[in-house]
Amino acid sequence: VRVEIVAVGTELLLGQIADTNSQHLGQQLAGIGVSCTYHQHVGDNHDRIVLALRTALARTDAVIVCGGLGPTQDDITREAIAEVMNVSLERDGTIVAAIAAMFKSRGRDMPDNNARQGDVPAGATVIPQRRGTAPGLICPVGNKVVYALPGVPYELTEMFARAVAPDLLARQRAAGETAHIQSRVLRTWGASESGLADALGSRFNALEGGTVTIAFLASGIEGLKVRLTARGDDAAATAATLDGEEAVVRAILKDRFGDIVFGVDEQTMETAVAALLLAESHTLGVAESVTGGLIASRLVSVPGASAWFRGGVVSYASDVKGSVLGVPDGPVVSADAAIAMAHGARRVLGSTIGLAVTGVAGPEPQEDQPPGTVFVGLAIGEASQHASLTLPGDRQRVRDYATISALDVLRRALS
Amino acid sequence: VRVEIVAVGTELLLGQIADTNSQHLGQQLAGIGVSCTYHQHVGDNHDRIVLALRTALARTDAVIVCGGLGPTQDDITREAIAEVMNVSLERDGTIVAAIAAMFKSRGRDMPDNNARQGDVPAGATVIPQRRGTAPGLICPVGNKVVYALPGVPYELTEMFARAVAPDLLARQRAAGETAHIQSRVLRTWGASESGLADALGSRFNALEGGTVTIAFLASGIEGLKVRLTARGDDAAATAATLDGEEAVVRAILKDRFGDIVFGVDEQTMETAVAALLLAESHTLGVAESVTGGLIASRLVSVPGASAWFRGGVVSYASDVKGSVLGVPDGPVVSADAAIAMAHGARRVLGSTIGLAVTGVAGPEPQEDQPPGTVFVGLAIGEASQHASLTLPGDRQRVRDYATISALDVLRRALS
Repeated sequence: VRVEIVAVGTELLLGQIADTNSQHLGQQLAGIGVSCTYHQHVGDNHDRIVLALRTALARTDAVIVCGGLGPTQDDITREAIAEVMNVSLERDGTIVAAIAAMFKSRGRDMPDNNARQGDVPAGATVIPQRRGTAPGLICPVGNKVVYALPGVPYELTEMFARAVAPDLLARQRAAGETAHIQSRVLRTWGASESGLADALGSRFNALEGGTVTIAFLASGIEGLKVRLTARGDDAAATAATLDGEEAVVRAILKDRFGDIVFGVDEQTMETAVAALLLAESHTLGVAESVTGGLIASRLVSVPGASAWFRGGVVSYASDVKGSVLGVPDGPVVSADAAIAMAHGARRVLGSTIGLAVTGVAGPEPQEDQPPGTVFVGLAIGEASQHASLTLPGDRQRVRDYATISALDVLRRALS
Repeated sequence: VRVEIVAVGTELLLGQIADTNSQHLGQQLAGIGVSCTYHQHVGDNHDRIVLALRTALARTDAVIVCGGLGPTQDDITREAIAEVMNVSLERDGTIVAAIAAMFKSRGRDMPDNNARQGDVPAGATVIPQRRGTAPGLICPVGNKVVYALPGVPYELTEMFARAVAPDLLARQRAAGETAHIQSRVLRTWGASESGLADALGSRFNALEGGTVTIAFLASGIEGLKVRLTARGDDAAATAATLDGEEAVVRAILKDRFGDIVFGVDEQTMETAVAALLLAESHTLGVAESVTGGLIASRLVSVPGASAWFRGGVVSYASDVKGSVLGVPDGPVVSADAAIAMAHGARRVLGSTIGLAVTGVAGPEPQEDQPPGTVFVGLAIGEASQHASLTLPGDRQRVRDYATISALDVLRRALS
């Protein structure tokens, strides 16, 4: 059973809101092992909704349409589905009475418009509402199906889990399909996207046509992700396949690049660093110029950061590096300055480790160094080390890459 | 000219990332008055990408396909477009040489894989890259067109503005179409979303069925946005309509809430603050605990920040407030502490103004204060003031709201 999601709303086309519904449904479908092959967005236009639904029915087995079930005149998904089913709409008195009762319980009369929410295409099954006014619909179209869900995320989420997921799984069983899909993401830092692709190229080709796929995803401050997706008969078998593939991929990456995998799935660089600091009872102070507080703000996003994070100094003006951190006179975009900043952070903030970044975000050069030049300094007790980086991109990207690179220097030192 | 956006990537179908590209392109298309009638998401699968492109070409005039132009094996948009155009791919030596030169400038050899990014469907026009490796493509299909853009937002944004938007506008002129859509966003801070909706409710209803619409959008650290969208015969008439509506809406908001509009369109709170600081030749130092560097990192994102931003102290551990900022002993989640932090920031960082935030992000209370309790301190010379806030939401939301709230305190003081 292959699914297509059709999200209805002109505000999606205009980019006024993000389509979190399709993202949520995509995650949920993957989680229950149902394959989703397309998404569509379409505006509040009858003919275009009809065409979107027919397109989806032509290339998939089941369509989930979200939105356009409200009470106002621009909510026309019901009418479009009726046209696709080639039936008329019939007003369901039970639904109208339930909506009227809900209004009454809030001390209000039901506006006339809301009666439209009781319109049901002949032959459709109603999914009762538990959180709002518009009911959902299960609409058979030949041997295929259109599920209609309200666009309010809080209502859609509940209704999908209660009524749509079980119906899809029943269809999948009836079709003799038992496929289960699972993904796992390895987060890396230290290799380029094309370098990763090159290293994993022969593995990628060897997997072609099989039950496992590899994909790459550049995610800025979250690192470069390698996503493994497996399809299997059940959850346990799929997880076992993923375990095996993860081991293969990790071995290839380790051999080629060393210790570049810093996390799995939702494990961020800052949580990796936090675990290492906690394990060795270290405390951390940071000194930032080019990153301007980004490193500190990533670190404090980790719950429980107060156990190991002391604080930071954003020494944006060059003389603040001297006056607050005690950095000696001299070039501030340099390895020496980065190391002095790290020692200064450790001393001023009273931590066992100091981590510092200095560099040029651009667009203008500084001290004759081009944008993207970044030095990371690390002081662990009296010992110190540094890294020199040349980062690509504009102001914001240099800053993002400098942030994850600096944390990676710390991670590798503690690993 | 009607446009369809096709975003390529299995990660979109699995809900692993949000499709910010389609949202951005939707906004941009609306802004230049080009109608976008559908979006699609499709995975990294050759046959399905081909079908998605053919579906889009069947129902619109121009297709923007995003993603799948990278160097790795799962980047197959070029091949799919060539099939839709019914031509072969030809490797463009100039593109390959440019990519190789880019790698060389970073001291690296170009991996073999990257040569694929020089593959161009016969008959297509290349959009040169300025920010990455994959060039864009303008691919004629009969009297219609497919634009291919890289999926990296930073690259896509620049390439759309430089090459796709002008080409679409030329097509629109050639077709004799003049309908024009424009939006304008008023950014506010200080009223709730339902408060805004209530204040603007009768205006909203009065506009029903006309050429202007109002929408509300809660955007976290970017504030609460009021979006006005107008449709007119040409750019000048549409802009005049928007000017009139903006004046009406501003008057309603001013009357009800005071000075809550801090920016228009892309004007952020930090650019508003930057302009005020520059105008009065002030310099700023910040002291943060609960926001952990977020205020500093927002401020340095403003180009030219070094003219007025001195730096910051992230006093996350309570004793750092005393040792670095000179805050006297006593409760650290308090108005007194916020004011002392602000004076400390001013003194330590050598600025004319000090801005400070202390508070509880949660999930646990601190000093018997519940999560969401936040104090902002502001020191301008020897004078000082404070604000006490109770912010909703989880750890990250409290921090985001505290950041924009603190900057808003500074904005109002300088206005």
